[in-house]
Amino acid sequence: SQPPIDSEGFLEEWVYHQIADEKLQQLHDLLEPLAEEDAANDLELSMGVLTLKLKGFGTYVVNKQAPNRQIWLSSPASGPWRYNLSYSEREWKSNRDGHNLDELFKRELKL
Amino acid sequence: SQPPIDSEGFLEEWVYHQIADEKLQQLHDLLEPLAEEDAANDLELSMGVLTLKLKGFGTYVVNKQAPNRQIWLSSPASGPWRYNLSYSEREWKSNRDGHNLDELFKRELKL
Repeated sequence: SQPPIDSEGFLEEWVYHQIADEKLQQLHDLLEPLAEEDAANDLELSMGVLTLKLKGFGTYVVNKQAPNRQIWLSSPASGPWRYNLSYSEREWKSNRDGHNLDELFKRELKL
Repeated sequence: SQPPIDSEGFLEEWVYHQIADEKLQQLHDLLEPLAEEDAANDLELSMGVLTLKLKGFGTYVVNKQAPNRQIWLSSPASGPWRYNLSYSEREWKSNRDGHNLDELFKRELKL
């Protein structure tokens, strides 16, 4: 189906928030077992920002950028990434190499 | 005075956390008036991650990366930045062009 577009040609903002929030919640659930492996690890999803702190490894941050309808990620292993929504696939794809947001975590954290 | 160094040649981690947390709290106080200008804005400091959401503009995220003793920032206006501590000045300097962490906010948000 066609994505609902606003008067400026962007995906309707409330639709963006709905799909992005869904993805952040999925990531939270994916990462929860990892966060619970060590009491010094920490996982939080708040205000549209997902934070995963892994002892000795560093901090992942995933956050919404609503004005450009992207999700941004910062990885202690691979640095910064930006993701655009593929509306038809309901997937978030890197604007650099097209990988899916989930794949980055699966690759870097051996999930 | 000389910075306290651990056996691997890094700044002692507890010292890093102390100085970095102090800076995040300072930034929080600096940005608070801006966050209060609009009910749709939001500011949060939690788990060593500072989040500033500005309606229509985007989201700033500032977070600690303890393993490399850096602070990382993601700006909706200028993208990703990394800062190293100048221990003698108690300042965080961009590893790209040497600007101070505070300066970025002052420049981009006209503080």
